[in-house]
Amino acid sequence: MKLWQLGEGGLLAELERRGLVEGIENDAAELAGGLVVTQDALVEGVHFRLDWLSWRDLGWRAAAVNLSDLAASGATPQALIVTLGAPPHIQLGNVLELYEGLAETQVPVRGGDTTRAERLMLSVTALGHSSRVPGRSGARPGQRLVVTGPLGAAGAAFRRQGYVRPPLRLDEGRELAMHAHAMLDISDGLAVDAGHIAARSSVRCVIDLERVPIAAAADLADVGFGEDFELLAAVDRETSFTEIGRCEQGEGVELRLHGEPYRLGGWDHFSA
Amino acid sequence: MKLWQLGEGGLLAELERRGLVEGIENDAAELAGGLVVTQDALVEGVHFRLDWLSWRDLGWRAAAVNLSDLAASGATPQALIVTLGAPPHIQLGNVLELYEGLAETQVPVRGGDTTRAERLMLSVTALGHSSRVPGRSGARPGQRLVVTGPLGAAGAAFRRQGYVRPPLRLDEGRELAMHAHAMLDISDGLAVDAGHIAARSSVRCVIDLERVPIAAAADLADVGFGEDFELLAAVDRETSFTEIGRCEQGEGVELRLHGEPYRLGGWDHFSA
Repeated sequence: MKLWQLGEGGLLAELERRGLVEGIENDAAELAGGLVVTQDALVEGVHFRLDWLSWRDLGWRAAAVNLSDLAASGATPQALIVTLGAPPHIQLGNVLELYEGLAETQVPVRGGDTTRAERLMLSVTALGHSSRVPGRSGARPGQRLVVTGPLGAAGAAFRRQGYVRPPLRLDEGRELAMHAHAMLDISDGLAVDAGHIAARSSVRCVIDLERVPIAAAADLADVGFGEDFELLAAVDRETSFTEIGRCEQGEGVELRLHGEPYRLGGWDHFSA
Repeated sequence: MKLWQLGEGGLLAELERRGLVEGIENDAAELAGGLVVTQDALVEGVHFRLDWLSWRDLGWRAAAVNLSDLAASGATPQALIVTLGAPPHIQLGNVLELYEGLAETQVPVRGGDTTRAERLMLSVTALGHSSRVPGRSGARPGQRLVVTGPLGAAGAAFRRQGYVRPPLRLDEGRELAMHAHAMLDISDGLAVDAGHIAARSSVRCVIDLERVPIAAAADLADVGFGEDFELLAAVDRETSFTEIGRCEQGEGVELRLHGEPYRLGGWDHFSA
């Protein structure tokens, strides 16, 4: 079997089933002492195109997608470790801009590696501490699903051949992590990510799309694109965040628009 | 200026000078609570060729090069975080073998990411704890330089179009870290790596090549290749490890063979 037949989620599940990795389906690894660690790679031509964003925005993005996983873990970031793979003909000035974009997140780069590569590649590890990591498996029927901000901006930008800077929802993450029963960041699209909570918590996530806040210049289809990096949480009480649905008995995700079933796309790196 | 003109060390120094990264010249980042973190990437065509080693050996290698940095920090490993970038046509069986090779190091993979990439790429973060990290800046004139094992096996294997498994010198690293004034792993070649200690400690490293243990099937030139992943340490006392030279007043590295100056090569990823 080839990777594109299995898909990204299938590969991770197979590795976990065989005991070769532990807890890789969570946004971040939780180690002793409340240490939370996450690692994401950005590969040119797969995750970004250099003609669609500035080097500075690329640096911000590489940090932000990892800090978003820390936010989903309720963590306070402590450091970034950055590996840059770059072709030798790249200009130093561009690389400096990239690291300036990383630095804009205010989380210090405390180590890493640089190496030659045919295509630009950034692998970032973010480390932080959390006193309570909600995880994905604690959602129960009757709980509310809330989201920390508008969705669709990334999809709308992509349609216009561009990117928006992912938001940092660290404060929101810490606030929700104090009581949320499940939480993750919306990176693969609302339907796919709600599906992760549904699968790990053995619940059915029902989402009323008319309640989902839509970003300016975006439309509903853009919500399926992902990469908005807002947090989705299952909570058992009223919060200051927008309620977009609820957990019910059952399985899978049900998207409704004014009560009617509705289908949104999603994203898989190996099959896309 | 382009990256190949600046070289890998030059890029890291420039980033550090501008305050965009901290302590990146060390093998590993030392964070609060004795936490030590290191990250290294292996890129197909740059760091390995798939026709020269098995998938299992590749997995071992990706873990070992990072655990070697932990060893140089005197750390006990706690977890690996692994990002795999792979073309979609790769067979699942090969990827499983790769993760089995990682698992052979006995350090659990606790998280990570998988993504599509044109060429196989592995970025591994290793985390551990150390009660004393020697660093690179504490060597002083009069101290001895010791090495934890024979050099040249990697260079000899490369000449025969192959690789050897890097050793894990974790026990040796912890033993030396209790008192060593500087320590690193030999990844870029003896001359280059001794040069890191010389530069950061403001000493001259004098090495008597006839005292350097040479691996079976290797010759002296292979010692310049690097990738042997033995530890090089500056100590102020007799140890059970092989003494190959000493620190003197001055700067740079002086390689001698039976008292005569001798030149060995080294490795730079951007200019190579």
